[in-house]
Amino acid sequence: MYGLTEITTKVFAALSTIEGVASWWTKETTGVSKTGGSIEFEFSTPSGEKIGGIGMEVLTLAPDKEVRWRVKSGPEEWIGTDVAFKLSQDGEYTIVHFGHENWREAVEFTAHCSTKWATFLLSLRDLVETGKGRPAPNDITIGNWH
Amino acid sequence: MYGLTEITTKVFAALSTIEGVASWWTKETTGVSKTGGSIEFEFSTPSGEKIGGIGMEVLTLAPDKEVRWRVKSGPEEWIGTDVAFKLSQDGEYTIVHFGHENWREAVEFTAHCSTKWATFLLSLRDLVETGKGRPAPNDITIGNWH
Repeated sequence: MYGLTEITTKVFAALSTIEGVASWWTKETTGVSKTGGSIEFEFSTPSGEKIGGIGMEVLTLAPDKEVRWRVKSGPEEWIGTDVAFKLSQDGEYTIVHFGHENWREAVEFTAHCSTKWATFLLSLRDLVETGKGRPAPNDITIGNWH
Repeated sequence: MYGLTEITTKVFAALSTIEGVASWWTKETTGVSKTGGSIEFEFSTPSGEKIGGIGMEVLTLAPDKEVRWRVKSGPEEWIGTDVAFKLSQDGEYTIVHFGHENWREAVEFTAHCSTKWATFLLSLRDLVETGKGRPAPNDITIGNWH
């Protein structure tokens, strides 16, 4: 049994370390997770075909509070956007307030990414609660854009 | 084995009939699903405690193309917003382009609803693919706001 702070700390570890992110988002996560560092996220199909990659700069690593990345390379629509996770506690819950912020416009790809992010947030919860997430390439496929 | 049009038609049926919506969103769906009609969506916990309800007017029912509802009652942030499903086919896929449109501002509740909608879209897919969705009150809980 864990106390609340321990759970929040586990969530923060899953968001703030290369090994952590590789356990719920994509196994192909490399780089340096410190403020100002760069992280590369690559995605492949289960059969090993490359789908694409994203490069982010780490803007914020506030222990048990916030992780914020800024997209430097990847899909054109993502460049300059921020991916942010704000952590808090409310009663018996550790809350992850997730946002993929500053899209220039809401397009069909935005809708796709929104639903896809939700599946990865469920993967993050599975990781923290059960020790096993569903990072790519074993992620939940939601459509023809993967 | 179904042809593409049959799958799209099954998706449309799941979106355009009271029985269909009750099979993936909330079992407590009542009303008249025709253009200009009103549908009430009620939500309860598994133990039967009422969580809340939403009233929508049916704006669009375009067979195999689009379903659009406008929120008339429910959470204050939802009033006046549209919930829209646009269907299309792409290769072997039936695409559901979902949007909950015209929020006055993006707030924490927006983020909650975005992730929650994703779980219901997965429920819709399960319904179409397996015959069994996960409508409330047996939906996937994502946090302290249910």
